[in-house]
Amino acid sequence: MREQFYQQMNQLAETLVVEAKAAAKAMSGAAEALRDANLTKAEKVIDADRKIDLLERTVDEMGVSLLARQAPVASDLRIVVSALRLSATLERMGDLARHVAYIARGRYPDVAVPGDVHKLLVTMADHAAAVGKNVAELVETRDLSLAAQIVEEDDVLDDLHAKSFQIVLDDSQELTRQEIVDIVLLGRYLERYGDHAVSVARRMNFLVKGLGNDGSDPFAEVDLTEV
Amino acid sequence: MREQFYQQMNQLAETLVVEAKAAAKAMSGAAEALRDANLTKAEKVIDADRKIDLLERTVDEMGVSLLARQAPVASDLRIVVSALRLSATLERMGDLARHVAYIARGRYPDVAVPGDVHKLLVTMADHAAAVGKNVAELVETRDLSLAAQIVEEDDVLDDLHAKSFQIVLDDSQELTRQEIVDIVLLGRYLERYGDHAVSVARRMNFLVKGLGNDGSDPFAEVDLTEV
Repeated sequence: MREQFYQQMNQLAETLVVEAKAAAKAMSGAAEALRDANLTKAEKVIDADRKIDLLERTVDEMGVSLLARQAPVASDLRIVVSALRLSATLERMGDLARHVAYIARGRYPDVAVPGDVHKLLVTMADHAAAVGKNVAELVETRDLSLAAQIVEEDDVLDDLHAKSFQIVLDDSQELTRQEIVDIVLLGRYLERYGDHAVSVARRMNFLVKGLGNDGSDPFAEVDLTEV
Repeated sequence: MREQFYQQMNQLAETLVVEAKAAAKAMSGAAEALRDANLTKAEKVIDADRKIDLLERTVDEMGVSLLARQAPVASDLRIVVSALRLSATLERMGDLARHVAYIARGRYPDVAVPGDVHKLLVTMADHAAAVGKNVAELVETRDLSLAAQIVEEDDVLDDLHAKSFQIVLDDSQELTRQEIVDIVLLGRYLERYGDHAVSVARRMNFLVKGLGNDGSDPFAEVDLTEV
């Protein structure tokens, strides 16, 4: 029973790593599709998203199965609950990469946005891809120095996102309506990808350090008239 | 022990209902703020979001505490795991309502977008608010006819969202850059609110009917070379 338990915990952790790597690969493919108006790459990212969805479901079912059969406690319980949450976040990161790929595919054979904004958005996408890679490595190695890097990279993403708005709101920049829409949506998708990465970083921090819970009784504290 | 268990299960369910009602109220306030350029309403929605965040954490802590101390099985386990997932989705719905309120506040004393588009976006926001109300009622009553209604309302939201793009991409519509940005973002926030509502509807369907799990062993099935 104990041996089976540890084997299943390992399988859960491994599947989560596979999902994290898939979510990272999706954004690195989407960044390439965006940079080079690469249709094949865009299609690949879009197709691969179903696999990420499947991985999410697998992690979820494994987690629930572990809870039901093994009733883990303490740090094992923390790992299982974290896995359930991380799988949902990673799935969402895959969706966002797919959205970026959709726009690249929709504008093919042109690049999605022109000139300087193209450079800015490709830089954003490259940063998002780097963040994704850090997320996958963090989930695999639990090296918390990567969590700090993710938070820093996300700040860069936020700055670039703000710059993209400056360009869009500057009437002297010649942009078509479609280009404006694409810039706003791409900026939003890439910024959100970074937000989700930060959420993974926080959860991994909690998982490794066991922080974030003050040990008080949540049932003792709740006062629903207060909120 | 059993009595305490059922009492804690009830508290978990009640807290989730409070969170769902808060997420619904947030969107109904955001819709009003958007319609009337109502600054007070917008501020209220923005402030209230912290309470939703707190409710999410409370539900999470209650759920993890129940898993740790009571090791629930079968339908009780399903309720706890569903609560953990629902709390995250409802928190996100609150965030999206807050984003809508930010735009309303940012354009005050003007309405955020002009003329016909204003009408369209207010209609979207009203639909989102209706969806939110249905979500809260579904979480409270577990009446699955509401789940079907939510899916239908979300289709309406998607259609309205598509219409907002048609207007933005039509060069004969006079729109400033800021208006275009606001329309794209508002459309995105409101459409996502609907998506999250559908995700709640699906989870509640699973919770009530116990479907969505074919009873197979997730650990037996996983083949990571396949994905």
